[in-house]
Amino acid sequence: MSLADDCIFCKILRNEIPSLKVYEDEQTYAFMDINPANPGHVLVIPKYHAPNIFEIPPEWLSACMVTVQKIALAVEKTVSPDGINILQANGEGAAQSVFHLHIHVMPRANGDDLKMNWGHNPGDMEAIAALAEEIKAELA
Amino acid sequence: MSLADDCIFCKILRNEIPSLKVYEDEQTYAFMDINPANPGHVLVIPKYHAPNIFEIPPEWLSACMVTVQKIALAVEKTVSPDGINILQANGEGAAQSVFHLHIHVMPRANGDDLKMNWGHNPGDMEAIAALAEEIKAELA
Ligand SMILES: [Zn+2]
Ligand SMILES: [Zn+2]
Repeated sequence: MSLADDCIFCKILRNEIPSLKVYEDEQTYAFMDINPANPGHVLVIPKYHAPNIFEIPPEWLSACMVTVQKIALAVEKTVSPDGINILQANGEGAAQSVFHLHIHVMPRANGDDLKMNWGHNPGDMEAIAALAEEIKAELA
Repeated sequence: MSLADDCIFCKILRNEIPSLKVYEDEQTYAFMDINPANPGHVLVIPKYHAPNIFEIPPEWLSACMVTVQKIALAVEKTVSPDGINILQANGEGAAQSVFHLHIHVMPRANGDDLKMNWGHNPGDMEAIAALAEEIKAELA
C-alpha cells in the first residue's frame, strides 16, 4: 500500500476512520457511501493513493474495475434498482470532492432525475448499515 | 471477437457503420460520441458483445478501463476541460440506450449542470471530426 497522511480515504484504509465495509481484497476496498444518491450506493477505492484517473497505475485501475463488477452484481441482486451507473469523477468541474480515486456504484431509480453533480445528502445510517450487511452477505 | 448481428456497436466494430475512431487495440475500440454532452466526449467499447457490466468477462472490462485511462489523458491534454467524468450505464433506469457495454469519457465544464441522463443532442460533425484528429494524434 502507498497511502497519504491527510487523505480521508487513506484514513479509512488505515482504519483511523470507520466505514461500512462490504468487500475487500489485496488491492481494493469497497464501502457504503454515507451520502447515498440512492439506497445501495457503494464506493470502490484502490489501496493506493492516487488523486484521479490520470495518476493511478493501470493495474490498480483494473483491480478496481474487477471489484466494481462484483459490487454491481451484488447491488443488483440485493437492491434490484431500475438501473446502475458506474461513475468516477476527476477535477472540480466534475464535482470531485475526495482526491483519492474512487468509483461509484450508484443504483438508479426511474425518475430520480439525478444530476451528474448529485450533491451530498446524509443518508439514514441504520438503513445504510442494514444494506451493507445484505450486500456483504451476497459477496461472501 | 464475439459480436452480435443486430448491435449498432458491433456493426461499428465490423466497419459496417462509420465511426470517428481515436484509438484501437486488440481488445478495445474508442470513438467520438456524435451526441456529445460536451466537446471531446469519447466512447470506449470492448470488441466483445456484452450488454452490460453484469455480463462482461472481467478481463475485457479491465482492458476497457486501461483504454479509458489513455483516452482520459489524451482528452485532458487536448480539450483541457474543467473536469472529466467516467460513466457507464446499466439498464433503462440508468438511461442505457445501446446494449453493448460502453464507457463514456465525458469532459465537464463548470456550470454545465448535466444530468446523469444527459440526453442525446447531435453535435457539429465537423467540430467533432477535428477533435477526433487532435485526440488521435495525442494517442499516436
Ligand atoms: Zn488517499
Ligand atoms: Zn455489440
